[in-house]
Amino acid sequence: MSVIFTVLILCSLSSWSEQQYTSDWTSLDARPLPKWYDESKIGIFIHWGLYSVPAISSEWMWWNWKGDNPSQVVVDYMKANYPPDWTYANFGPEFRADLYDPNEWADLFAASGAKYIVFTSKHHEGYTMWPSTFSFNWNSMHVGPKRDLLGDLASAIRNRTNLVFGLYYSLFEWFNPLYLRDKSTNFTSQDYAKTKTMPELKEIVETYKPEIVWSDGEWEPLDTYWSATQFLAWLYNDSPVKDTVVTNDRWGSGTLCKHGGFYTCLDRYNPGHLVEHKWENCFTIDKRSWAYRPIANIDDYMTIEEVIREIVITISTGGNALVNVGPNRHGKIPPIFQERLQQMGSWLKVNGEGIYASVPWKYQNDTINSDIWYTSSKDGRYVYAFLLMWPKNITEITLGAPLPSANTVVTMLGSNDRSIPWKVGSDNRGMMIDISNVKLHLLESQWVWVFRLTDLLTDNATMTTIQRTTSTARITPRSNANLSFSSSLSLFMLLDVLLYVVM
Amino acid sequence: MSVIFTVLILCSLSSWSEQQYTSDWTSLDARPLPKWYDESKIGIFIHWGLYSVPAISSEWMWWNWKGDNPSQVVVDYMKANYPPDWTYANFGPEFRADLYDPNEWADLFAASGAKYIVFTSKHHEGYTMWPSTFSFNWNSMHVGPKRDLLGDLASAIRNRTNLVFGLYYSLFEWFNPLYLRDKSTNFTSQDYAKTKTMPELKEIVETYKPEIVWSDGEWEPLDTYWSATQFLAWLYNDSPVKDTVVTNDRWGSGTLCKHGGFYTCLDRYNPGHLVEHKWENCFTIDKRSWAYRPIANIDDYMTIEEVIREIVITISTGGNALVNVGPNRHGKIPPIFQERLQQMGSWLKVNGEGIYASVPWKYQNDTINSDIWYTSSKDGRYVYAFLLMWPKNITEITLGAPLPSANTVVTMLGSNDRSIPWKVGSDNRGMMIDISNVKLHLLESQWVWVFRLTDLLTDNATMTTIQRTTSTARITPRSNANLSFSSSLSLFMLLDVLLYVVM
Amino acid sequence: MSVIFTVLILCSLSSWSEQQYTSDWTSLDARPLPKWYDESKIGIFIHWGLYSVPAISSEWMWWNWKGDNPSQVVVDYMKANYPPDWTYANFGPEFRADLYDPNEWADLFAASGAKYIVFTSKHHEGYTMWPSTFSFNWNSMHVGPKRDLLGDLASAIRNRTNLVFGLYYSLFEWFNPLYLRDKSTNFTSQDYAKTKTMPELKEIVETYKPEIVWSDGEWEPLDTYWSATQFLAWLYNDSPVKDTVVTNDRWGSGTLCKHGGFYTCLDRYNPGHLVEHKWENCFTIDKRSWAYRPIANIDDYMTIEEVIREIVITISTGGNALVNVGPNRHGKIPPIFQERLQQMGSWLKVNGEGIYASVPWKYQNDTINSDIWYTSSKDGRYVYAFLLMWPKNITEITLGAPLPSANTVVTMLGSNDRSIPWKVGSDNRGMMIDISNVKLHLLESQWVWVFRLTDLLTDNATMTTIQRTTSTARITPRSNANLSFSSSLSLFMLLDVLLYVVM
Amino acid sequence: MSVIFTVLILCSLSSWSEQQYTSDWTSLDARPLPKWYDESKIGIFIHWGLYSVPAISSEWMWWNWKGDNPSQVVVDYMKANYPPDWTYANFGPEFRADLYDPNEWADLFAASGAKYIVFTSKHHEGYTMWPSTFSFNWNSMHVGPKRDLLGDLASAIRNRTNLVFGLYYSLFEWFNPLYLRDKSTNFTSQDYAKTKTMPELKEIVETYKPEIVWSDGEWEPLDTYWSATQFLAWLYNDSPVKDTVVTNDRWGSGTLCKHGGFYTCLDRYNPGHLVEHKWENCFTIDKRSWAYRPIANIDDYMTIEEVIREIVITISTGGNALVNVGPNRHGKIPPIFQERLQQMGSWLKVNGEGIYASVPWKYQNDTINSDIWYTSSKDGRYVYAFLLMWPKNITEITLGAPLPSANTVVTMLGSNDRSIPWKVGSDNRGMMIDISNVKLHLLESQWVWVFRLTDLLTDNATMTTIQRTTSTARITPRSNANLSFSSSLSLFMLLDVLLYVVM
Repeated sequence: MSVIFTVLILCSLSSWSEQQYTSDWTSLDARPLPKWYDESKIGIFIHWGLYSVPAISSEWMWWNWKGDNPSQVVVDYMKANYPPDWTYANFGPEFRADLYDPNEWADLFAASGAKYIVFTSKHHEGYTMWPSTFSFNWNSMHVGPKRDLLGDLASAIRNRTNLVFGLYYSLFEWFNPLYLRDKSTNFTSQDYAKTKTMPELKEIVETYKPEIVWSDGEWEPLDTYWSATQFLAWLYNDSPVKDTVVTNDRWGSGTLCKHGGFYTCLDRYNPGHLVEHKWENCFTIDKRSWAYRPIANIDDYMTIEEVIREIVITISTGGNALVNVGPNRHGKIPPIFQERLQQMGSWLKVNGEGIYASVPWKYQNDTINSDIWYTSSKDGRYVYAFLLMWPKNITEITLGAPLPSANTVVTMLGSNDRSIPWKVGSDNRGMMIDISNVKLHLLESQWVWVFRLTDLLTDNATMTTIQRTTSTARITPRSNANLSFSSSLSLFMLLDVLLYVVM
Repeated sequence: MSVIFTVLILCSLSSWSEQQYTSDWTSLDARPLPKWYDESKIGIFIHWGLYSVPAISSEWMWWNWKGDNPSQVVVDYMKANYPPDWTYANFGPEFRADLYDPNEWADLFAASGAKYIVFTSKHHEGYTMWPSTFSFNWNSMHVGPKRDLLGDLASAIRNRTNLVFGLYYSLFEWFNPLYLRDKSTNFTSQDYAKTKTMPELKEIVETYKPEIVWSDGEWEPLDTYWSATQFLAWLYNDSPVKDTVVTNDRWGSGTLCKHGGFYTCLDRYNPGHLVEHKWENCFTIDKRSWAYRPIANIDDYMTIEEVIREIVITISTGGNALVNVGPNRHGKIPPIFQERLQQMGSWLKVNGEGIYASVPWKYQNDTINSDIWYTSSKDGRYVYAFLLMWPKNITEITLGAPLPSANTVVTMLGSNDRSIPWKVGSDNRGMMIDISNVKLHLLESQWVWVFRLTDLLTDNATMTTIQRTTSTARITPRSNANLSFSSSLSLFMLLDVLLYVVM
Repeated sequence: MSVIFTVLILCSLSSWSEQQYTSDWTSLDARPLPKWYDESKIGIFIHWGLYSVPAISSEWMWWNWKGDNPSQVVVDYMKANYPPDWTYANFGPEFRADLYDPNEWADLFAASGAKYIVFTSKHHEGYTMWPSTFSFNWNSMHVGPKRDLLGDLASAIRNRTNLVFGLYYSLFEWFNPLYLRDKSTNFTSQDYAKTKTMPELKEIVETYKPEIVWSDGEWEPLDTYWSATQFLAWLYNDSPVKDTVVTNDRWGSGTLCKHGGFYTCLDRYNPGHLVEHKWENCFTIDKRSWAYRPIANIDDYMTIEEVIREIVITISTGGNALVNVGPNRHGKIPPIFQERLQQMGSWLKVNGEGIYASVPWKYQNDTINSDIWYTSSKDGRYVYAFLLMWPKNITEITLGAPLPSANTVVTMLGSNDRSIPWKVGSDNRGMMIDISNVKLHLLESQWVWVFRLTDLLTDNATMTTIQRTTSTARITPRSNANLSFSSSLSLFMLLDVLLYVVM
Repeated sequence: MSVIFTVLILCSLSSWSEQQYTSDWTSLDARPLPKWYDESKIGIFIHWGLYSVPAISSEWMWWNWKGDNPSQVVVDYMKANYPPDWTYANFGPEFRADLYDPNEWADLFAASGAKYIVFTSKHHEGYTMWPSTFSFNWNSMHVGPKRDLLGDLASAIRNRTNLVFGLYYSLFEWFNPLYLRDKSTNFTSQDYAKTKTMPELKEIVETYKPEIVWSDGEWEPLDTYWSATQFLAWLYNDSPVKDTVVTNDRWGSGTLCKHGGFYTCLDRYNPGHLVEHKWENCFTIDKRSWAYRPIANIDDYMTIEEVIREIVITISTGGNALVNVGPNRHGKIPPIFQERLQQMGSWLKVNGEGIYASVPWKYQNDTINSDIWYTSSKDGRYVYAFLLMWPKNITEITLGAPLPSANTVVTMLGSNDRSIPWKVGSDNRGMMIDISNVKLHLLESQWVWVFRLTDLLTDNATMTTIQRTTSTARITPRSNANLSFSSSLSLFMLLDVLLYVVM
């Protein structure tokens, strides 16, 4: 307890803005994550670029066509539909943005229930969505739309919504000959990093003041090639967003899941168990592409049930969910994406209470019922049990994790707070909720249902079981094996507090 | 009685294929509609053409841009995005059909539960989707895709599905100077009709053997200008589809809702009451366009609830539903349409029993509960009550129309035939169905729910109330005012039999 | 002598405009050629169409690419530079005419010394350069320039120059499916000819009133398929240009060099000897194409010496010269053509006296000096000897044909009429002109030099030698072998008078 | 005398290739110009780039459209022919080079009589004609032709001809935002110069080994911004072309006509009097543009007489002539340019003796006859008098400058060395050449005629008159006013020797 206290004292005494970080990971990693980020829980990822023009593949189209290991499908498609000497840049004039209405986007994102957005300022193709000083004739003002697509979105987001504006930026560019030259020297030369990446990163920060810098394309050289720590020190000490900005963990080979701000680890990272460092699960509604693909079929898109399930598991295990959509070459977010975002919004309107500003509960996945995932209100008064699938042919839902008190009340979100009967489980553990009288059609939302449980008892005895609840994890970043727990306050709880309460 | 008898006798004695029709409406209108059409109930309408290229407006884009009364929105869009001297034909090379897979379309249409398709062979723009002999360099082989788009779809539909293949064809072409010249003579000259329309219509019939000829663009001149009766006599007497083909009612100014095969009356025709002549409600999922519009938003698309509601009301009142989708310039049916068609298919899989080969019941809309619409099985054994919206906060559904017998059983489609409790309404009319124990989440489908009622009593007393049940009717074709009813069998019933049973 | 007299009397008594021609060749061929045509001598042929867009081949590009016997060069070029599914019509939007200034053309043609033009209203591709009523979306108003290219040129020519305006028109269209269908019936059906060719021909005559109808693409079917004689009877009797129009001889298989107005026989027809029927040598400055070809090199273009040589031989043997240029897709006549036309104009300014309104002399090519060709003034007072190449190392030019009198004076055109010494040839025939004091640099023009000889004696004795002077003839149309001559007036002279004087 | 002597001694003792230049103008300017350059006399300048696509304006099209002072003609043209949001980079895909055959170019240049070429590697637009490491997606490999246009030409020139290969390179780029940023700091920052210009210049030198580096676009900042002297020191000391390369004088504001290699002073510089420093007159056959312009008319092109006149005056006054042509977007050099180059070649074949490796004579323009310009053979044995226009109506040509000896013989080049009569002018000065017997048509060439005069007497007395012979001078670089002459050897002669003999 004293540790927290000390931290709180320190926080109140020092102004963060006067903190000076040094350009090493020890210092940078110690920076607390601005708390708006964790409380936001849900963001919208937007992949839009010149890659939104080709009808097939994805934002990796250029690489799949001309890279080291070309996709036969892409090669064949291009042969069948384009002249032999066609170049990727020739797609430029077809990128029209003629239907681009950033206000419409802003309203859609706001309606989705998301609290922030991350927009691709530049992807691996190198084409910049703003008039970069460092990307002559390979940006949206010079080629195609003739417009500061990024800037116009930033304004719309800020003028019409309360969403936080963030930017994705790819450090490397597959085919930039300057990068390739550095690569051919095993990155002993840094011409590309110093004359392209770093100046450009600073330009977008200074010009558009994004509160997320979502780096990518970092993996080939070490972070030293990118001067990543120098950039972050500047970002945290001197940039116009120094107090509020959050970053991710993609700052060079080896930094993933290890250094930086929140962890992203892998695309679609969703380990299924609590991760002690704040992390983010970015996933895309078109399951096979981050960019818009005219070739996509409905089966390539996640259903709303899948989207919400992904969100719920992510948030119950300490992550944020960054849900991706792909606008098309006209600048339009296709209706199928609009539908998903609206559905998400309607669900969050009813069930957001268990999402926003929630904290992971001591249990994430129920110990008995694998369709139940938990969050908790910050003050611990409410625990939210998310039911992924409504059970058929049973009238009771059995929960293994909660220790109910006599005062415990169960209600469903979106049901006008009508309390639901329940009884204590066998051997006094868990709860059995009687759903025989729940009229699903009377609930304000559908898809995933949320039970709010009040006044549960504290339960330290079961802490050791937390980590075994894994389901969809693909990688396990930074070993958790050495965690030990004191009886009074576990290190885990300390970190938990540090991460989710203090900040 | 004698009239029906005579007709029935005639039908049984003569082979339809030996019938010779004369080129006048009396003869042509007397042709019975091949019965496959009424039994099919649901078709897919496909609007695809060069108009699928421009990002805004609809299949009327050219007219909205350059016609008599241009849309300012279209004019402004074109000014903002194209050179001043841009022509409509210049869109040609952008019509790529590079992702066109007619097999994929066929499978999707089959999965939608539809039983036939109607494909736009040519719309008012004049561009033909097959290599027309009469449209040099204004067809899909010469301009754009370089492919017989129509023929490839016909093959796919026939090879992979049991769907009936039909064709839409616009008689007139807005800007065809030959048509405009005929028009300038008040259609006293027939150069366009004789050298373009009629030869082209015959060409598609002979080449692709469509079993629906869905005429359109007929309204400016009289049917005599088009030589419509001559064409139909040929179609019914001598064409390769003479026995099975059905046509609509768009054959010249004044024929709508009056002559030809089934009636279409108006686009989106859905009068809300029984129409004694077989009719069709064509409507489009994108509420504002038949063609694909990149500019469309999700709110422009009908929800699946709206689609099914439109289908149910249409079929309960004697119509077929022709549900329209708009493929894009790539030849892809966008995901939002795929989703609606799949949803439609999943609903029909469960509830098709009350749709396909059904007949209108004596009531269409319930007399008390306006959310209930009826169909009947041909043999009258089953009556299907379609509930458009599940009521909140009540446990009984009250039906005013049925006269239940002691043997009447109520089940819901998609519920494993579990019978549902009901009781007779007040003063022995109608039924009160107890839905307090229905678990919606256990049903195999959602959206619109179907109650199957067996062994109802016959009920002549209420016949006079039928016609007052109108809801969405926009026009009332051919006056019903002079209908009179005998006690044993009304003329109405006679028509009913003629239309829905005999054919 | 009496024959001429009779003809002259007839001419003066009857008004040509009241003549009624019947639709047979006997009647039509008897129509005298309006005399403006022979007097004009030189015209400009303009090949401009969609074929001006592709970089290679010629106005036959489409055929060379997709016809019966494709050119490998064209096929390979298209493969190397265009998508596999590219169509010819896809070139449409690239046909811009953005630099088309018909006034500039008119001034250039006037400066060239030509007296008429023949403009391709439609070539074998079928694309019409005016908004044809019969070529929907395959004309310059609907596809590409969005402009009545033909009409604008007609106005410019008439407003700014005295040139006669004529039109080229291709009867057939290689790939028009309607034509191909007629062809597949061995032209027993006439759908194409009756609904496309004839109405279109009448439309251009009535709309633009061309005084030349230069037909082409006639060769596959007989003239009866085209209804050619009916058209010509209408043209000569009832059209707005009935009194002044001239036509050529391309009206169906077998009419070439035989029926119609002036003879063209073959492209680039230049038989090298006198032809007794008025004829025309159309040839093109780009020796390998009538249409503009970006691929052409300077060696593909005729030098001005070659152009003038072709003109001189043509006119001395009774033909008109129709010199072709090919504007590009911008609507610009490339500088190299401008240069040739200006050079031609500067030469004609000096030497036109021996060209315009001249008549063939009794000799065409000199009997001794093959570099000399002759014309004569109509009244016979002047004979013009055109020297194609200035001889080296000699000081006398020997002419075999003239019989000089004592009054004969020799001057050179463009020399301020300074007389040049000469003496009678050996055995009193021919002349030897002393050029030792001619200063070429003092002459007003160069390239081909013209000696004007006055007061020559008549010379019947040598008439039999005329026909042997052949040089570049490629075909000999209609045998001249049976011509015989009376001593007092040869049939030849009669024809000569009929053709070149009376008319 | 001692000065020359010293220089000669130094020359013979030291090897130039071991000379180490320092990066200051004093050292760099002292480098002798490799003598191949002066002896070559005539080069071909080639302006080819993305600017070859737009139909109007010139290689300055972008600037004329979007620069500080837009040309109304260009703005109006773009409005009339392109969408409002068209960008210059959108022209990219139209740059096809589909007819580019560098072998054809090489043969043409060789046939023109030129001895070197200068090819635009990059113009002010910034688009590079080789795959630059520093111009990602703004080069001919990434945008448009997909080809190393520069490299392929270098190979063709070297494989097929003896021409020297040189490169033009624009230091600045109008719209490169990095350059503009440096400019906004008054060039106190050098980001553009250091990360773009200098690396790119080195890249082309190292990759393509040009023997001319023809800099341009230098004028806004000082040479120090460009690090020009550092570059030149590297070029002269360490580059692969250090011994043979020549450069011009465009290395920063203030260097023009003052520092560097040969002087260019202004475009089309042709002062009309002797310039003591080796200089070059670059001029362009299309008088209004260096780049190909589809809009150009024949009157915009220099005649061959004008081209030769420009060459003759340039060479007689100590310059080299760099004759410019503009290939089109197909990669074709249009026929009108081909014609001029071929004409030039035919003239040089006959008259090159007086051009190549000649030196200026003591007189440049004749003192009496302003149509006469002189050169001399290096050994002084022959003096060549170029007659720009053949006089009319006179039989003698009077020359004021030569002092003939008794042995003087006059012949005309291209005349088989037949000697021509002459006599001494009045008061024993000058010559009167009798041309009464010259047969121009017997000469092997035309346009400008060359008299070769042998064994003239030396003539020091008239030296002071040299400088007054000015004719077409537009600017006078570096004042000559302070030149003084000693009786034995003038400074002028010293310079003359230094420049034209020693080097």
